[in-house]
Amino acid sequence: MRVAVMTAPGEVRVEDRAEPVIAEPTDAIVRLSATCICGSDLWPYRGIEALRKPRPMGHEYAGIVEEVGSAVTTVRPGQFVVGSFFASDNTCEICRAGYQTHCVNRQPAAPDGAQAERVRITLADGTLVPLPEVPPDDLVPSFLAASDVLGTGWFGAVAAEAGPGKTVAVVGDGAVGLLGVLAARELGAERIIAMSRHADRQKLADEFGATDIVTERGDEGVARIKDLTGGLGAHSVIEAVGTQESMLQAIRSTRAGGHVGFVGVAHEVTLPGMELFFSGVHLHGGPAPVRRFLPDLLDRIVSGRIDPGRVFDLELPLDEAAEGYRAMDERRAIKVLLRP
Amino acid sequence: MRVAVMTAPGEVRVEDRAEPVIAEPTDAIVRLSATCICGSDLWPYRGIEALRKPRPMGHEYAGIVEEVGSAVTTVRPGQFVVGSFFASDNTCEICRAGYQTHCVNRQPAAPDGAQAERVRITLADGTLVPLPEVPPDDLVPSFLAASDVLGTGWFGAVAAEAGPGKTVAVVGDGAVGLLGVLAARELGAERIIAMSRHADRQKLADEFGATDIVTERGDEGVARIKDLTGGLGAHSVIEAVGTQESMLQAIRSTRAGGHVGFVGVAHEVTLPGMELFFSGVHLHGGPAPVRRFLPDLLDRIVSGRIDPGRVFDLELPLDEAAEGYRAMDERRAIKVLLRP
Repeated sequence: MRVAVMTAPGEVRVEDRAEPVIAEPTDAIVRLSATCICGSDLWPYRGIEALRKPRPMGHEYAGIVEEVGSAVTTVRPGQFVVGSFFASDNTCEICRAGYQTHCVNRQPAAPDGAQAERVRITLADGTLVPLPEVPPDDLVPSFLAASDVLGTGWFGAVAAEAGPGKTVAVVGDGAVGLLGVLAARELGAERIIAMSRHADRQKLADEFGATDIVTERGDEGVARIKDLTGGLGAHSVIEAVGTQESMLQAIRSTRAGGHVGFVGVAHEVTLPGMELFFSGVHLHGGPAPVRRFLPDLLDRIVSGRIDPGRVFDLELPLDEAAEGYRAMDERRAIKVLLRP
Repeated sequence: MRVAVMTAPGEVRVEDRAEPVIAEPTDAIVRLSATCICGSDLWPYRGIEALRKPRPMGHEYAGIVEEVGSAVTTVRPGQFVVGSFFASDNTCEICRAGYQTHCVNRQPAAPDGAQAERVRITLADGTLVPLPEVPPDDLVPSFLAASDVLGTGWFGAVAAEAGPGKTVAVVGDGAVGLLGVLAARELGAERIIAMSRHADRQKLADEFGATDIVTERGDEGVARIKDLTGGLGAHSVIEAVGTQESMLQAIRSTRAGGHVGFVGVAHEVTLPGMELFFSGVHLHGGPAPVRRFLPDLLDRIVSGRIDPGRVFDLELPLDEAAEGYRAMDERRAIKVLLRP
C-alpha cells in the first residue's frame, strides 16, 4: 500500500510498503477514509526536530475498521472510527482522570504512519471511538479533524478555562488556534480575540466565533490585548504555536489569576521563573488528551453543531503528499487533507 | 522608634528612626504586638537579591491600630489587626477574583518596614482584617503567622488543589512548607508527604499532619514519591523553596493532570518548555493572595483549630534582630519572632 515517508528534512515521498497486519491482539486495522498533515509534522520537515531515519508520517485518522485483534471487544469490522494520536488503555488511573495522552500504557496510536491507505492502530479498545453508523462523505473531514487538531484546540480552551463571562485570547492562527476559537465559543466564552495577520485565517476565525481580531504580535500584541481588557489582560489565553515569543505573549496577555492553556509543542521555550511567579497565571497544557473529548466532539459533529473540517483548505490525493507538506510549510494552506 | 535595617548583605542593625505618621488618607498606624523574619528576607541577606541602599526590613505584622487616615472606614484605633504583605484595595476586579497580591493598586503594605515598634500600613481598608476583640497574648504568634507564612503555605496547597482523596507532597521544610502541610490537612488531603531531612522540622511536619516523611531530594526524592504513589506521582505538590532543583523536583513528583502550587520565590529558575509540556501538570503560584484567605484563617486560629504560630521556634527582642537573621540563615531556627 501507499505510505508517505519523510526521508530527510524537506523531503517527503509516497512509497509502496507492506499492508499492515495485526501485530498485537489489541490492534485494529483501519482503512482510512481520509488522513492529513499536522503542524507538528513540520518540525522534522524544517529540521528542528531530529529525523534519524526515514519515517512513515501521519498520526491523524478516521476510517472503517477492517480487522481487529483477538483481544479487541469494543470495535468491530465495518465500523467508522476516530481515535487520538496517542493510544491509551482508557482504564488506568491517569486515563480515568482524563489524561489519556499520559496513560501508563501510552504509545503511538499509528506507529507505522497514518498518511497511508491503511493504518494499524494500537490499543484499539482504549483508543478508538466508533460511530453508530458510517457517516456521509461530507462529514469525514470534520471527523478527521477530531482525531487531533480539534481535540487539541479544545484542550487548549479547556486548559485555559474558557467559559461563560470570560474573555479568551488565542495566540496562533494555525488550525489548532482556529479550532481553539471554535472551542471557546462552544464552551460559552463571552469574547474571543483571535491573534492573526492573515486574511484567510481571520475570516475562518470570524466564522468560528471570534469577536475581535488582533494583528499585532509580541509586545505590541500584548498591549492590544491589555487595551481590549481594561488593562488587565484576558481571563483565558490559548497558546497554539510553541515558540518562546508565543509563550511569553500568552503569559503576558493573561491577567493575574487567569489561565494559559498551551498546546503548541514547546520546542524552543524556556520560561523565566521570576516572570512566571509574578504573573500569577495558571499554566496547563501539553499533548492533548483528545480521547477525553472525543465522544462529545463526535456528537457535536454528527448533530451539525460544529464544522471543524473547514480548517482543511487544501485537499490532495495521498500520492501528492509532498505538495501538501510544501503548501503547509509555505503557509499557502492552513491544513491539508489527503485522500488515500 | 526602633527599626531593623539591612545595611549590607549579612548585616542587620536595629536603628532609631522617626515614628511613622499618616502619609496618605488611606494609611493606618499599627503598634506591633509581634513581628518576624521571613525566608524571603534571606535573599538580600545572602546577597542573591540586590540591596541598593539600607533597607528597613519586615513585611509581616499583627498588632493594635493606633491611628487611621481620614479615608479609612473599616478599621479603627484599638482594634487588633492582621494584614497581608502586599496592600490591596480589595475592590478591583483582580481583588474580587481573589488575587489581591496583583491588585491594580498593589503596593508594599509596610513600605517603611515592619520589623519595628510601629508600622505604617497602606490601603488600610483593603489590606487589614480586624479581629472582633484583642486576642490573648498566646495567640499572637499564630495571628502573626497568618500575615504571610501561613497564608503562603495555604495558597500553595490551594494552588496545588490539595483536597479529599488527594496525595499531597511538600517540597521544602521551611515555615512555608510546614504550613503547607497544615493547610493540606485542613483542606482534607488523604495523604501528605513532607520532604525533609531535619529532625526538628520532621517533627513539626508530623504534628501538622504529615503522614509520610521523605528524606531524599532531587532525582532520588522524585523516585521515592513515585514509589509511594504507585509509580504515578502525587496529585498535588507544594513547592516552597524557589530553586531550580526544587521546582523540577516538584514538577517531576506530580502525576500528569496533577497540580503544582509554587510559592517559593523562583529566583534562579528557568523551566524547560518541552519537559513542562510533556509533564501534563498544572502550574500555579506566585506571591500568595493572603488577603483572600485571612478571614477564614483568623477564624480557624480564634477557634483553636490550627496553631500555625508553632513555626516560631526562636523568639527574640526586636533589638536582637541581627541574631535572628543569623539563626535563620544558619538554619538554627525555622522562623524567628521578634518582640518590639
